[in-house]
Amino acid sequence: MEVSLIGHTPDPELTVAAAARLCYSPDQVSQLLEGLTLTRARKLITKLQKMGHFSPFEHASFTFGIAGVSRSLSHQLVRHRIASYSQQSQRYVKFEDLAVVVPPTIAAKPEAQEKFTAAMEVIRDAYQALLGLVPAEDARYVLPNASQTNLVMTMNARSLRNFFALRCCARAQWEIRELAWRMLDLVQAVAPTLFADAGPNCWSSIGCQQGAMSCGEPPSRTSR
Amino acid sequence: MEVSLIGHTPDPELTVAAAARLCYSPDQVSQLLEGLTLTRARKLITKLQKMGHFSPFEHASFTFGIAGVSRSLSHQLVRHRIASYSQQSQRYVKFEDLAVVVPPTIAAKPEAQEKFTAAMEVIRDAYQALLGLVPAEDARYVLPNASQTNLVMTMNARSLRNFFALRCCARAQWEIRELAWRMLDLVQAVAPTLFADAGPNCWSSIGCQQGAMSCGEPPSRTSR
Amino acid sequence: MEVSLIGHTPDPELTVAAAARLCYSPDQVSQLLEGLTLTRARKLITKLQKMGHFSPFEHASFTFGIAGVSRSLSHQLVRHRIASYSQQSQRYVKFEDLAVVVPPTIAAKPEAQEKFTAAMEVIRDAYQALLGLVPAEDARYVLPNASQTNLVMTMNARSLRNFFALRCCARAQWEIRELAWRMLDLVQAVAPTLFADAGPNCWSSIGCQQGAMSCGEPPSRTSR
Amino acid sequence: MEVSLIGHTPDPELTVAAAARLCYSPDQVSQLLEGLTLTRARKLITKLQKMGHFSPFEHASFTFGIAGVSRSLSHQLVRHRIASYSQQSQRYVKFEDLAVVVPPTIAAKPEAQEKFTAAMEVIRDAYQALLGLVPAEDARYVLPNASQTNLVMTMNARSLRNFFALRCCARAQWEIRELAWRMLDLVQAVAPTLFADAGPNCWSSIGCQQGAMSCGEPPSRTSR
Repeated sequence: MEVSLIGHTPDPELTVAAAARLCYSPDQVSQLLEGLTLTRARKLITKLQKMGHFSPFEHASFTFGIAGVSRSLSHQLVRHRIASYSQQSQRYVKFEDLAVVVPPTIAAKPEAQEKFTAAMEVIRDAYQALLGLVPAEDARYVLPNASQTNLVMTMNARSLRNFFALRCCARAQWEIRELAWRMLDLVQAVAPTLFADAGPNCWSSIGCQQGAMSCGEPPSRTSR
Repeated sequence: MEVSLIGHTPDPELTVAAAARLCYSPDQVSQLLEGLTLTRARKLITKLQKMGHFSPFEHASFTFGIAGVSRSLSHQLVRHRIASYSQQSQRYVKFEDLAVVVPPTIAAKPEAQEKFTAAMEVIRDAYQALLGLVPAEDARYVLPNASQTNLVMTMNARSLRNFFALRCCARAQWEIRELAWRMLDLVQAVAPTLFADAGPNCWSSIGCQQGAMSCGEPPSRTSR
Repeated sequence: MEVSLIGHTPDPELTVAAAARLCYSPDQVSQLLEGLTLTRARKLITKLQKMGHFSPFEHASFTFGIAGVSRSLSHQLVRHRIASYSQQSQRYVKFEDLAVVVPPTIAAKPEAQEKFTAAMEVIRDAYQALLGLVPAEDARYVLPNASQTNLVMTMNARSLRNFFALRCCARAQWEIRELAWRMLDLVQAVAPTLFADAGPNCWSSIGCQQGAMSCGEPPSRTSR
Repeated sequence: MEVSLIGHTPDPELTVAAAARLCYSPDQVSQLLEGLTLTRARKLITKLQKMGHFSPFEHASFTFGIAGVSRSLSHQLVRHRIASYSQQSQRYVKFEDLAVVVPPTIAAKPEAQEKFTAAMEVIRDAYQALLGLVPAEDARYVLPNASQTNLVMTMNARSLRNFFALRCCARAQWEIRELAWRMLDLVQAVAPTLFADAGPNCWSSIGCQQGAMSCGEPPSRTSR
């Protein structure tokens, strides 16, 4: 899995703070950024977080390049609807090789790895043979969930925070959880205050909402 | 593929017409349905369609049961974001057998069908073996796009009209196109006026928007 | 303020439960409702609530008629984006009289009520005079926030739960708070389990998220 | 009315083109920007427009500062749901003066202007008096639709194109139409190809969708 932040709203924290300030101020829009230092902006953002006032967070958008993830992951990912996606098409792209994601539990057991590898080889051959007989969009019906795919995804900071709450959680599948933690690292590097308290719900004032399904132990920032 | 309409807003056409009427009327809400016969409602709906005023169409929702479609289809389907989905989970459900969708182009060529069937058998065995070794959520990485899945989906009439415009189009993949036409038949049976002019863009006043990719020949209602 | 439930998904609890069941079941869609009594459906819904699994709640939609609320309220209301609205137009409707909402704090103070009434009379006259001179869409610039408006609104159960969390809260303005509690009563009457724990965040497992702005005292169901 | 573009996705055209390229390419995400000159990006974007493939346009977001518009306008504006808003609050801000928007039809007729001005003076006095008697959130019930408000709004390029299609149209109210054309000028300056064919529907391949309500004459780019 490769994850990179390929772009974002410039000055995301100043933008969010200026928008929030507007709500409570008689000032004109042109004055909003006057005297708004990063220090002040961050103080205001922390206050917004504590009051649960997240709508201004939507003004900051983040665009990610995501490569080498499985179609299992991408099918879960695109269920997040407050987001934009461009995904490599299996209808239009003919794959010369079959790059796959191997789940760690499979990689860890030689017997499982062997079954998995053998199946992938059969699939690879069937796909290549079918490409010669039917359209690529139909040949792809043999491709496995393990097939690697690439995406460009854009989410605003509020939607990202919800994504992290759900997908950094120990109950999320390992692959999308890894993606979520990597994305969190990337956005915290450029907007530390917007995401200061982002992560699984158990890290926030909301707390675990999994009920009987709770893992019982919040991940530490280091041991996750 | 099995598609059924498992529920919808009662009196969808009266509901849409009453909402539309409200916009232009000094009447109270309690009076909106007074004297609103189905004939009048349909006349008003036709007028809304001609003026491109589709927001009242959102008040009518339709819930579908969809079974026996491929994961290729479901991955395309859930990209429609103004909709609600509940999908059979490959993380939690262990499949005893591997039910698959066979693309017609493959079924039509014995050589292709043979390759396809052989691959499916290998996958079936690998999946069953992996179920004994690793969690179901990891064993499923070998499952193919062809795997059958089931969904419950809810969309409002406006979002459905957009879905039909894109997915009844000859440029859509055959499987989701079949789903779209079946859904269109189902909703036209219960709300004929709301969907009177629904279908691919080439059927409406918008016209084909595919440019150089246009198929050039609008489908007839019978020959589609 | 008049609020009525003018329609909803038939059998909302059975629909939600059937959709949820699908996620975890190898059954066909046609079997989903088999043996699904209301008692079983409600047991499953309660389980979903405890696990924070609310996506199946989206399959149940509710349509409200709302009359005699202020334009202050409607401007707040339409900020909820996962919803559909049809609102009486001040562009197209010419109002013969000026019906207004009087805030209770104003009604309670004779001095305030007097100022308010006098202003409304001047506005009424100005509006009627302007109707004779300019288009209604421009005459309406003199109309006050207090002007009564009517809406038809549709929201699904998940979006409604979020609406109740924010707008039943003591921090919401009195008018939209009244609307929220009335809507909650209406949906609890037809889908008691879907909304069993709905209300301000302080009533749920999430708890108050208002930080320093917290009212400190959760409303009781009777004293709200 | 003051409208400014206070931020946007850096390199919006390169970002959109890179995302679109990903859909049809076996390349890795890290290679997407390789050799992607602005000239090539624009060629690709023009192709996307002609094929009606607008989803990659969502990766480019634009944030506007909007000041001195009426509450009539803002109530229409926030009905666009695929967008983010922060608006000056009339609940929390106490206005020392009452700044208003005067419709041109009113300004053009001395008799109308006189009625309007007189009403605004009465409202101003009533609001100031009420501020001393009741909370600001209630005093504001006397404030008119003409009251000026400020907003920060973020929309992506696809949602903006829809906004322009509806609100640059001669059928939109004059005030939001002016806002739409100003916004169009601002985004065309930084992303000319993304918005090359943006504007009212009559300018695009879709054509007028207003039916009997059509104005009959598409605005020229200069005479609008």
